[in-house]
Amino acid sequence: MKLSARNVLKGTVLEVKKGQTTAHVKLELSPGVVVTASITNEAVDDLALKVGDQASAIVKSSDVIIGK
Amino acid sequence: MKLSARNVLKGTVLEVKKGQTTAHVKLELSPGVVVTASITNEAVDDLALKVGDQASAIVKSSDVIIGK
Amino acid sequence: MKLSARNVLKGTVLEVKKGQTTAHVKLELSPGVVVTASITNEAVDDLALKVGDQASAIVKSSDVIIGK
Amino acid sequence: MKLSARNVLKGTVLEVKKGQTTAHVKLELSPGVVVTASITNEAVDDLALKVGDQASAIVKSSDVIIGK
Amino acid sequence: MKLSARNVLKGTVLEVKKGQTTAHVKLELSPGVVVTASITNEAVDDLALKVGDQASAIVKSSDVIIGK
Amino acid sequence: MKLSARNVLKGTVLEVKKGQTTAHVKLELSPGVVVTASITNEAVDDLALKVGDQASAIVKSSDVIIGK
Repeated sequence: MKLSARNVLKGTVLEVKKGQTTAHVKLELSPGVVVTASITNEAVDDLALKVGDQASAIVKSSDVIIGK
Repeated sequence: MKLSARNVLKGTVLEVKKGQTTAHVKLELSPGVVVTASITNEAVDDLALKVGDQASAIVKSSDVIIGK
Repeated sequence: MKLSARNVLKGTVLEVKKGQTTAHVKLELSPGVVVTASITNEAVDDLALKVGDQASAIVKSSDVIIGK
Repeated sequence: MKLSARNVLKGTVLEVKKGQTTAHVKLELSPGVVVTASITNEAVDDLALKVGDQASAIVKSSDVIIGK
Repeated sequence: MKLSARNVLKGTVLEVKKGQTTAHVKLELSPGVVVTASITNEAVDDLALKVGDQASAIVKSSDVIIGK
Repeated sequence: MKLSARNVLKGTVLEVKKGQTTAHVKLELSPGVVVTASITNEAVDDLALKVGDQASAIVKSSDVIIGK
């Protein structure tokens, strides 16, 4: 499946930390460039996400703020 | 100002393309890792954004989808 | 690719209307149940989206408001 | 109150699952078409949401990604 | 209709500026406290939004970033 | 750092309530005008957020729905 989202950033899963219903996942895009995602625990299970996996961080361009 | 958003990714502005009211800005985080943001033209002017600027892409972790 | 987003709703493209940089796409999930998406014109071209296509509307559960 | 959001999708509440602070609500729009929302527990109480209620899933068109 | 969104902020419409497909609406919540919304032109027409109207700015709490 | 987000609303922290991983923060913009934000507990710690602090609620204009 191809996505309309302009940002599909490939990386390696660094960390998966489950809370009660929400999990925090860290993905390294390149050395030192890390993206954090909050997803449901259910999604972690569905994707069988674990440290070392190849995965993508997907973000709509309208959800990005620029700071300068 | 420090932000609650978990993702404040530093990069260099590669492209600024203004539309009628919305602009698309590309920021290179590391060689080949590029993030696109849709922001208002007004914001481009306020920040005086131009190619080569050092800037940050700010994204709340709840706005990131993981794909695998 | 499998997604962490809880909502991946399959449907048929009813309408694709391009603006200057942003397009509005209508997707029918079932008779009378229609979802509208605002995506970039660039995404419409990348996906070669046209009326009659099978496609999915993807929404993070944290982006859904409930009204009653 | 009328809303600017382009997607106000009517349905029936299938499930309400409270976590510590966040609840997951499933709404059936038509047979087999189900939307999941993450809302605060506080909101579940305010709306007195329960299985079988008629309710709406509200989504801004800029929060919808198209996949094909 | 009651909403799960934690922020339903009442105000007065200060400005409605239509673009080609997207409009920018400014709402004054209290003297000097102004919120800007980007909505579709279609929504402006549906709500018959005009300067001086009483209206509300609705924002999910998960879409708010805190800066300090 | 200057931000592209159109809404940077200054206020005073009224309440900080931590959950297991997510915190709810209430910010008073003017007497009676209160914004609620859901942020990570980690962010509360990073910003050392506490009642009485001067802080800002930051919202992209594309995340605001208008109701009338």
